[in-house]
Amino acid sequence: MPMEPKKPHAILHDVASNKISCEAAMGKGRGELTLDPWRLERTSVGEVVYGQGKTLEQLRLSLEELERHHPVLATKVSPEHGRELQRHFPHGCLWEEAKLFCLGADLLAADPKAPCSDVLVVTGGTSDLPVAREALGTARFFGLGAHLIADVGVAGLHRLEPHLVALRQAKVVIAVAGMEGALPSVLGGLIKAPIIAVPTSTGYGANFAGLTPLLAMLNSCAPGVGVVNIDNGFGAAVLAKKILSRQNDE
Amino acid sequence: MPMEPKKPHAILHDVASNKISCEAAMGKGRGELTLDPWRLERTSVGEVVYGQGKTLEQLRLSLEELERHHPVLATKVSPEHGRELQRHFPHGCLWEEAKLFCLGADLLAADPKAPCSDVLVVTGGTSDLPVAREALGTARFFGLGAHLIADVGVAGLHRLEPHLVALRQAKVVIAVAGMEGALPSVLGGLIKAPIIAVPTSTGYGANFAGLTPLLAMLNSCAPGVGVVNIDNGFGAAVLAKKILSRQNDE
Amino acid sequence: MPMEPKKPHAILHDVASNKISCEAAMGKGRGELTLDPWRLERTSVGEVVYGQGKTLEQLRLSLEELERHHPVLATKVSPEHGRELQRHFPHGCLWEEAKLFCLGADLLAADPKAPCSDVLVVTGGTSDLPVAREALGTARFFGLGAHLIADVGVAGLHRLEPHLVALRQAKVVIAVAGMEGALPSVLGGLIKAPIIAVPTSTGYGANFAGLTPLLAMLNSCAPGVGVVNIDNGFGAAVLAKKILSRQNDE
Amino acid sequence: MPMEPKKPHAILHDVASNKISCEAAMGKGRGELTLDPWRLERTSVGEVVYGQGKTLEQLRLSLEELERHHPVLATKVSPEHGRELQRHFPHGCLWEEAKLFCLGADLLAADPKAPCSDVLVVTGGTSDLPVAREALGTARFFGLGAHLIADVGVAGLHRLEPHLVALRQAKVVIAVAGMEGALPSVLGGLIKAPIIAVPTSTGYGANFAGLTPLLAMLNSCAPGVGVVNIDNGFGAAVLAKKILSRQNDE
Amino acid sequence: MPMEPKKPHAILHDVASNKISCEAAMGKGRGELTLDPWRLERTSVGEVVYGQGKTLEQLRLSLEELERHHPVLATKVSPEHGRELQRHFPHGCLWEEAKLFCLGADLLAADPKAPCSDVLVVTGGTSDLPVAREALGTARFFGLGAHLIADVGVAGLHRLEPHLVALRQAKVVIAVAGMEGALPSVLGGLIKAPIIAVPTSTGYGANFAGLTPLLAMLNSCAPGVGVVNIDNGFGAAVLAKKILSRQNDE
Amino acid sequence: MPMEPKKPHAILHDVASNKISCEAAMGKGRGELTLDPWRLERTSVGEVVYGQGKTLEQLRLSLEELERHHPVLATKVSPEHGRELQRHFPHGCLWEEAKLFCLGADLLAADPKAPCSDVLVVTGGTSDLPVAREALGTARFFGLGAHLIADVGVAGLHRLEPHLVALRQAKVVIAVAGMEGALPSVLGGLIKAPIIAVPTSTGYGANFAGLTPLLAMLNSCAPGVGVVNIDNGFGAAVLAKKILSRQNDE
Amino acid sequence: MPMEPKKPHAILHDVASNKISCEAAMGKGRGELTLDPWRLERTSVGEVVYGQGKTLEQLRLSLEELERHHPVLATKVSPEHGRELQRHFPHGCLWEEAKLFCLGADLLAADPKAPCSDVLVVTGGTSDLPVAREALGTARFFGLGAHLIADVGVAGLHRLEPHLVALRQAKVVIAVAGMEGALPSVLGGLIKAPIIAVPTSTGYGANFAGLTPLLAMLNSCAPGVGVVNIDNGFGAAVLAKKILSRQNDE
Amino acid sequence: MPMEPKKPHAILHDVASNKISCEAAMGKGRGELTLDPWRLERTSVGEVVYGQGKTLEQLRLSLEELERHHPVLATKVSPEHGRELQRHFPHGCLWEEAKLFCLGADLLAADPKAPCSDVLVVTGGTSDLPVAREALGTARFFGLGAHLIADVGVAGLHRLEPHLVALRQAKVVIAVAGMEGALPSVLGGLIKAPIIAVPTSTGYGANFAGLTPLLAMLNSCAPGVGVVNIDNGFGAAVLAKKILSRQNDE
Repeated sequence: MPMEPKKPHAILHDVASNKISCEAAMGKGRGELTLDPWRLERTSVGEVVYGQGKTLEQLRLSLEELERHHPVLATKVSPEHGRELQRHFPHGCLWEEAKLFCLGADLLAADPKAPCSDVLVVTGGTSDLPVAREALGTARFFGLGAHLIADVGVAGLHRLEPHLVALRQAKVVIAVAGMEGALPSVLGGLIKAPIIAVPTSTGYGANFAGLTPLLAMLNSCAPGVGVVNIDNGFGAAVLAKKILSRQNDE
Repeated sequence: MPMEPKKPHAILHDVASNKISCEAAMGKGRGELTLDPWRLERTSVGEVVYGQGKTLEQLRLSLEELERHHPVLATKVSPEHGRELQRHFPHGCLWEEAKLFCLGADLLAADPKAPCSDVLVVTGGTSDLPVAREALGTARFFGLGAHLIADVGVAGLHRLEPHLVALRQAKVVIAVAGMEGALPSVLGGLIKAPIIAVPTSTGYGANFAGLTPLLAMLNSCAPGVGVVNIDNGFGAAVLAKKILSRQNDE
Repeated sequence: MPMEPKKPHAILHDVASNKISCEAAMGKGRGELTLDPWRLERTSVGEVVYGQGKTLEQLRLSLEELERHHPVLATKVSPEHGRELQRHFPHGCLWEEAKLFCLGADLLAADPKAPCSDVLVVTGGTSDLPVAREALGTARFFGLGAHLIADVGVAGLHRLEPHLVALRQAKVVIAVAGMEGALPSVLGGLIKAPIIAVPTSTGYGANFAGLTPLLAMLNSCAPGVGVVNIDNGFGAAVLAKKILSRQNDE
Repeated sequence: MPMEPKKPHAILHDVASNKISCEAAMGKGRGELTLDPWRLERTSVGEVVYGQGKTLEQLRLSLEELERHHPVLATKVSPEHGRELQRHFPHGCLWEEAKLFCLGADLLAADPKAPCSDVLVVTGGTSDLPVAREALGTARFFGLGAHLIADVGVAGLHRLEPHLVALRQAKVVIAVAGMEGALPSVLGGLIKAPIIAVPTSTGYGANFAGLTPLLAMLNSCAPGVGVVNIDNGFGAAVLAKKILSRQNDE
Repeated sequence: MPMEPKKPHAILHDVASNKISCEAAMGKGRGELTLDPWRLERTSVGEVVYGQGKTLEQLRLSLEELERHHPVLATKVSPEHGRELQRHFPHGCLWEEAKLFCLGADLLAADPKAPCSDVLVVTGGTSDLPVAREALGTARFFGLGAHLIADVGVAGLHRLEPHLVALRQAKVVIAVAGMEGALPSVLGGLIKAPIIAVPTSTGYGANFAGLTPLLAMLNSCAPGVGVVNIDNGFGAAVLAKKILSRQNDE
Repeated sequence: MPMEPKKPHAILHDVASNKISCEAAMGKGRGELTLDPWRLERTSVGEVVYGQGKTLEQLRLSLEELERHHPVLATKVSPEHGRELQRHFPHGCLWEEAKLFCLGADLLAADPKAPCSDVLVVTGGTSDLPVAREALGTARFFGLGAHLIADVGVAGLHRLEPHLVALRQAKVVIAVAGMEGALPSVLGGLIKAPIIAVPTSTGYGANFAGLTPLLAMLNSCAPGVGVVNIDNGFGAAVLAKKILSRQNDE
Repeated sequence: MPMEPKKPHAILHDVASNKISCEAAMGKGRGELTLDPWRLERTSVGEVVYGQGKTLEQLRLSLEELERHHPVLATKVSPEHGRELQRHFPHGCLWEEAKLFCLGADLLAADPKAPCSDVLVVTGGTSDLPVAREALGTARFFGLGAHLIADVGVAGLHRLEPHLVALRQAKVVIAVAGMEGALPSVLGGLIKAPIIAVPTSTGYGANFAGLTPLLAMLNSCAPGVGVVNIDNGFGAAVLAKKILSRQNDE
Repeated sequence: MPMEPKKPHAILHDVASNKISCEAAMGKGRGELTLDPWRLERTSVGEVVYGQGKTLEQLRLSLEELERHHPVLATKVSPEHGRELQRHFPHGCLWEEAKLFCLGADLLAADPKAPCSDVLVVTGGTSDLPVAREALGTARFFGLGAHLIADVGVAGLHRLEPHLVALRQAKVVIAVAGMEGALPSVLGGLIKAPIIAVPTSTGYGANFAGLTPLLAMLNSCAPGVGVVNIDNGFGAAVLAKKILSRQNDE
């Protein structure tokens, strides 16, 4: 019988007592995985399966175990693994372009409030789309209303204009950009929403696989930009989730 | 007569028409400064004066001009400049340890809700205090309730414990750490609030003046951490401000 | 007739006289390899064959020659080479996941004292397992009792708890972690055993193939952490061997 | 007797014959300096004295010798050296803020065509002014009409607007910016003139003394941006000179 | 009906009014692409399709849409995509070695004025040819007369000599070099034309994929060299276009 | 009344209950310091005061508070602070060359077993002495018998010879070296003791302030070398302490 | 009719007159190659064909053209190209492991004076062999007597001993090493010959593809070590050639 | 009584027997220095005192002790230490600009064969002079005939011409350059002598304190260039000494 993740075990008790960490509760480890089904309760975001470097068997086991507790998402899933997982979990949802697979949620659900969604994912160029989709799918997995605005980089700023009304109403904006990574700075001077910046590894030569936009975003002259790792659309969406769920919290 | 910063000039009009950018309105440049008094309206955070590399005269002029529009903050102010500014603006507020000076606000006001403040600034070690104070003072400048929890780094995790109740109630947590920068990861696994991570240049040798905690924070295994530049306590507080002011927005 | 590796030729005599370095003793070089069968005596750890970049023929020759003196281990052995070596040396022991092959020892022998083994290998995540297994197998090759605790990274610290008794009794702890590499810092604040930290190349983007956890481990705020190269599970186990064999030495 | 720099010795003959390089012509070296008075003829830009790391005596000698051939400029001149040079050459022109000193030209001459000058020097922030002034003074030294537009960085893009008419008429635009270095990208999407980008070492932390804007400018999504070294206002102005003097060439 | 790109809509109006950015004019986005057909008018260089990381479908759509407005070029096109595009657009022009494909221009047209072309593309070695061809083809696409001088690197400087007459008459010189990247410095001391330096990723070991020539070119002791990104022959040609088209501008 | 540090509060209870972290026990914070007097018990090494970046007042307070629990060491103490601390704590022990100050121990006590000490600190050159002394003094502070062998770097390997008997009897060897950092590799091929490698920032140019020996030590071809941060003699001695105290543990 | 490469045209005349650079003499370029057959005369080392990044056709053409002037070597030749060249030039000599192909010399000729050869190539480990062979073959191509001593790295220094007599008689020693690159330092303290150090990309993790031994060799505490690029066995042999041919020069 | 350094103790015996390393012979350590007076015999270059980071007392002691065996040189001597040493050793020779001090030789002796000296030290610019002088003085200390050619960098190549006769007769050329470090490449294409390249930290911005010329020299397209550390004029001269003394060796 699965644990109830919503039971108000505060983390103080989690850490203080032996109850939660008894091996029985932990499912006796299931081989070499040590899952963390209480993370959802502690942090408002349940454990997610990082797919890179995992075997299909490890992916399958993790998803199965965590599904007993709450909906579960796997990221950076290769196309091969994705198709195998879809076969194994026919009720699962695969978004191949975003390298996401999940059980218990719909990664592709359009937001009825779009284009005036709570979360707007904005990209500088077409090549940033896979990372932007990772952010979009993750946001939807966590129940956020999210919408994509693509290809509005700084070389043609007027392309931002038709979207300014939506951008100025958004609760969080996720800016995804490679090259020189200037998009968050430009947005930061135009809107009030907190901006989460995601550098991408788009580019070549002195781009150094995303180092350039990463550094540029950390040095943005528009203050109030929070940066996540290169190509980390997932992390950006989790931060958006935490920002938005803080409102309605006890 | 100063412009009214709260008048609902949307940015669409700012950019679209010549009204706001006429040289008269801009104070005719006042030498080589081009101030941006409408930034408050566009972005919820008014223009702030970055003190590093500015002469005392440039600082004085910028503060004077911006004060006509809204309260104004200067950051990274050297002790010498700080004392000169205090002399010139006797009504100003100087916090030397935080390298902050402001007109129209109180940088040192304790939060009546402390220790259960909306914004908690947490540091790993004593050497991180100057950056933490920059975050604390900036948060207060923008009207946020903020409180400091110092010296609870990962080498003695139990020191976090007496603060867990407050940490779990905070709306935003700013984690300031040098060395290996592990504090945001540990916090990220324990609490629900969004975490803004500030790497500091505390350390030596292979710390590379903050590069190590910067990289560590960007790679945090606890997702949902937004990172700002090394030693950028100011930027962290601005992001906190944007997150919190989003709640009550139209 | 092979040299007797256990004969007490001290290194002073090795270097001082021509006896040990005569070409006859050296096996006349066997092509372009210059083996070092006296290393075991000098350093308590015999020569090990580094498999990366070697041809199958070079691997085979090295193993054959060294086996005349003492049990012999090859590391970083590709799956193809591993299978070929198993075919050539049917008495050998291959651990494919750990990229190890050896003659004269059992890489997979469980420790009867587990989980309270002298050497505990602890990993932050599932992706660190190959490196952890290299450490585990190497430790066993050198006759140490070793046990694995997997997937207890800092994003869910309570997962460490069921293992604290064992961790506090271990003689040496090898902490294997990628991402931000915070595991050794957390362990360093909790236990007395010396900690050997192994950064792994797990991660992406600003992880820079293990540079981030390497730097983080070198900057650990918990003192007394010795760091080895990225992905160098082998070196960590050798250091453990040297620490433990010092006890019973003349 | 000095050589006449304007005599049409083409470089083909300079290199091909021994005439110009005879030691007599070279002034017999004047100690350890080997001046190049024919550079003006070959490259349209005469030899300039790089002031950093030179002693006052070396500066004085170089200026004296080159003045015999053509007007001469010294860059990166420290305030102390500048004042000494002014004393020694009362007819010289010192611009302390730009670290420039010259003989035979006026570094501070306003352009009668301003603000619609051929060369516009644009800065992102106030801290970029010293580098911008180096560009401005160098351009004037070479006889170009040049004008400065300061403090119009991307955090407040509307500040660019009152200058767009001038910017769109300029023949060359020199964009000077630190922080994330986004100014050339934004300009590159708005105007037709070739853009010379100068990263500055303004900033702190992950700015790495100008590395961030340097990389950003090299990766600009607006093509047609030529980048020079960090803080190299001089080089930018020389490139502008070469671009503009190509028009009226034989 | 396509917009007329040559109509004198100044950028002031583009940005100021809603006319150009209405979704209708933008072709309603055509999926996730946001094209910028007015860029030609604003910047004298129309939008170009960056081929790396794009799917064949995205390439095809972008070319089709932009062709309605002006001739269009795609860069960094893989051989496979190149051949597919040639099949789809039989009227297009493919230069496989240069990774270029275009509609509405001839990438391979020899310059009747060669070798005394306005634009000379010079390479240090044979391995720099693909990047040099990208520059050459792009220059031709934009209507410039361009010619190639190959393999005249600094290890045999006399090889430059037969080309000095042409080099000294050129309006712009594009110097393409890998290894130590010294070619622009040597040229910079010999000729009057502005020099655009393109570092290439030719080399190995401490070349670091073009970092060495990039740094060398930025530090050229011959002033007046504008540098573009590693392997960015395209950007160099765009800068040449902007320099040359400034002459005949309104 | 000070807490008794030796009372068997296991870390399990430290973390599990509120007892140790109650604010009363913590001395009510004493301003912004959060001391950790139980660290000695948990980790066999008590809290040490990192002197860099601390004010004299912070140093004084930390030493005073911790002295109530156990002997206490401060590292990286500047000469000025050192002399002030000696004045304030006349019973303290200052070693200026090592930048150490302590209460309750003797940093300069010679080891009666020298030169056959348990811990040998070996340096490559004279410039490595300050870091070696930090290791030596720290080892003595923790009650280890330690001895220094200076200036035996690899450019004159025979200098190692008179020390080989002692080196081969040592329980732990700390190898301190700058330049190319080859000393640990050479020692690692000669002796059985575990080697702790300390890179120093001695050197210039491409040494990059210790980066070169750090990388070299991490890549040592002699396995079993544990590396600590650049210039971190303190950390090396703590690791030695942990290795040696493991022997006599319960 | 080919030029006679041995005719005493001094470089002074090469550069000064138009004779050598006339296009006729240059073979009219043969497509896009500009060969330099006079390099042998100027520099004592003829032009060599760098094979990486060249097509088979370019390789074939270069070899054919240069063979008309002097024996010719190609380096970094892929196995496929090597075999094709052998087929095309049956009189050529291919050394696949060294990635060398030449016309007019024997890459595999043993030195009759070995092991007391003028040039000794020494390697730290087996994985350094390909680079060592490139040095060995290149030395033989240039007519030097050269011999290989393999696998004598610093982890077993006594392995150097049987070779010390030869090493101390060599005229030049080429030390090839990866990992921590300590071999040149150790040799530099033992012998009189000039040492040319070649770092190799052998290693993993923090080796950074040869950066570690490169830095270590540049920082050698044994002075008088000249370093070449990572994996550049060819360059080391050319330097040896230049050192040795200086003796018998006019 | 001092040892006679010239007695033919071969290194084999040095290492093999205890004679030379007995503490008596070593002067019983003289504090913490372990001198190596036999290095001259082993390596043809006696021990030299590296002055950076040493106290005056350490310098004085080292010079005194080594002077008993052979002439002795100290490098990187600060002006203050230099003057103190001159006072203490009135017979010594100080060259302040070169940061050299020696006993038993003349650092300033002109070479009677100049400008056709065996060793030519060539610099790119005036700012490279201090490093060039270190090379020049060191060469003279070791008895080589050496001469300086200053300020002939690649921005004015014809300045090389009057020196080509001397350059082509030199036995070794030391090329000292900062900025883009192209001088060795240009020389390498013109002369036969082996070239030792010394990058200097001259420059700013993306020069990164000599990293740029270091990388450029390592990637020289002119093969046969041996590179030493940034600013290491001393090491270049030692390599020259080793190259030249090889000729007349037994």
